[in-house]
Amino acid sequence: MKKHIYIYSPSSAVRDKAAFKRGVMRLKTLGYDVEVDEAALSSHQRFAGNDETRLAAIARAAASGADVALISRGGYGLTRILPAINYKALAKAVSKGTRFVGLSDFTALQNALLAKTGAVSWAGPALGEDFGTESQPDDIMEACFDDLITGQGEGAGWKFPKSATKSVASGALSEKVEEQFSVKNSVLWGGNLAVLSSLVGTPYLPSVKGGILFLEDVHEHPYRLERMLTQLLHAGVLAQQKAVVLGQFSNYQLVPHDKGFKLASVVDWLQGRIKAPVLTGLPFGHVATKVVLPVGAKVTLAVDGRNAFLLWGHSH
Amino acid sequence: MKKHIYIYSPSSAVRDKAAFKRGVMRLKTLGYDVEVDEAALSSHQRFAGNDETRLAAIARAAASGADVALISRGGYGLTRILPAINYKALAKAVSKGTRFVGLSDFTALQNALLAKTGAVSWAGPALGEDFGTESQPDDIMEACFDDLITGQGEGAGWKFPKSATKSVASGALSEKVEEQFSVKNSVLWGGNLAVLSSLVGTPYLPSVKGGILFLEDVHEHPYRLERMLTQLLHAGVLAQQKAVVLGQFSNYQLVPHDKGFKLASVVDWLQGRIKAPVLTGLPFGHVATKVVLPVGAKVTLAVDGRNAFLLWGHSH
Repeated sequence: MKKHIYIYSPSSAVRDKAAFKRGVMRLKTLGYDVEVDEAALSSHQRFAGNDETRLAAIARAAASGADVALISRGGYGLTRILPAINYKALAKAVSKGTRFVGLSDFTALQNALLAKTGAVSWAGPALGEDFGTESQPDDIMEACFDDLITGQGEGAGWKFPKSATKSVASGALSEKVEEQFSVKNSVLWGGNLAVLSSLVGTPYLPSVKGGILFLEDVHEHPYRLERMLTQLLHAGVLAQQKAVVLGQFSNYQLVPHDKGFKLASVVDWLQGRIKAPVLTGLPFGHVATKVVLPVGAKVTLAVDGRNAFLLWGHSH
Repeated sequence: MKKHIYIYSPSSAVRDKAAFKRGVMRLKTLGYDVEVDEAALSSHQRFAGNDETRLAAIARAAASGADVALISRGGYGLTRILPAINYKALAKAVSKGTRFVGLSDFTALQNALLAKTGAVSWAGPALGEDFGTESQPDDIMEACFDDLITGQGEGAGWKFPKSATKSVASGALSEKVEEQFSVKNSVLWGGNLAVLSSLVGTPYLPSVKGGILFLEDVHEHPYRLERMLTQLLHAGVLAQQKAVVLGQFSNYQLVPHDKGFKLASVVDWLQGRIKAPVLTGLPFGHVATKVVLPVGAKVTLAVDGRNAFLLWGHSH
């Protein structure tokens, strides 16, 4: 039987309708049965429909019985409706086998769901930007997504980028990180740094102790990333993690008066402030090549030389 | 005897040295005795010296015995050094009559000082951008600053802008705000919204109940402002205030796909979520015309028709 994907829009309005259509076609071409929510192309101001419309769409996604409920896109819109989301309904859908997949603004829902119910969701692609590209979608992204929907995914691996290992020479891979080490049976959580840091101090930030926190962002200058990390640091969140894994931080603009202050400065600074290793290079974020990651699942992080692995075994 | 102003740089490096010099000259012309910290023009990456340099500058400002310790500029740099600041030394300086004045990134220090010691500091101008302008500095800003340094300031008044009262027609001035009302003896606090929201969940956010929260920001799109306000809302901060007073939100860019989502949408949304009145038009922020406001002092907010007043009596 074909795997069933439910497409819905919990955040910003879909602007690139051609990409949306290409994404749906691509998923059909890949052999999936695609169902599109009735409000997937709704719009109200910058949102994919008003708050009630988007809440209803989330409820329909939870009731769909699909193998994967996939967001059309991120943007902005979830944080303001967090108090009104029916987390029990989402957790029930998860327990029946629906995997909620998305990223960026979706980080808010994923972490709120984890905080409220402990249910696992998946950091992964969005329809338009990942499956609706004008050129062929990314191979690795599609393979990871297929592994997820068929229940065959067991983990994700990557190599530390040379530049990153150099930039954190005093940190991640020389002093703090042994050539070989592992963190076992730890809850993986996180997502978009701007969205996650906006949950600090609220009931929607999971209280994860001994976890592995992964982070990514886009369009944020390193000084802003550092301010967000500082909030997580001063709130005591970072000290409670066994590892911090940095994904891709893309599309920001350094300026002349940064005078050497850059992303690597922030990573070095961060590594100097927490005992847990700060690893870089995770292939996840606002980039084409992205893995899927279980938000809220227990995973093992293994590092062997320049190779890193996040392993969670069969997802079911 | 001339009033003594101590200029120091706790945040970003001074880039516009001509404005810095003009600012010092202007303060001297106004009849003040101006002392410039030895590291006021230091730079390290984007900062006004490394963390130790800026911490030492803050300590020297506290030890200066000046009537006003005035920041050269805001920018970024205080949040990362909050754990290392000697708040007792600052509070002692305040008790001896030194008024710490600044805005923007300085919001971090001001609120941390309030959280740690209860000491009052002042939201007000910065040297370069306010006193170092190429044209004549703003009259109202200078008058408020002089009232502060001579101890004659008793409050600040403003008229609600017509546009703002229209935009919050369902909120601030029709339903929620009576023609005449007042909030007495409440702690005024706040400052830059991005900086303040980055303190939520940390030990540096004051726990103010029954307060009056004022907010301003620059270069932040309304959707980002809303996300920050949502953090304050979901953290329970807004529900504890007796009023929220919005200053100036300047220099952001709306985009076509906002489709009607704008600052007024955010104000309306906010007013719909809290019982306390949301007032607009406070002349404070990243704009030329700014009043000075005591962060941490008990004030009275009085509204009479389209006129609003924040009153604190003599500052000493």
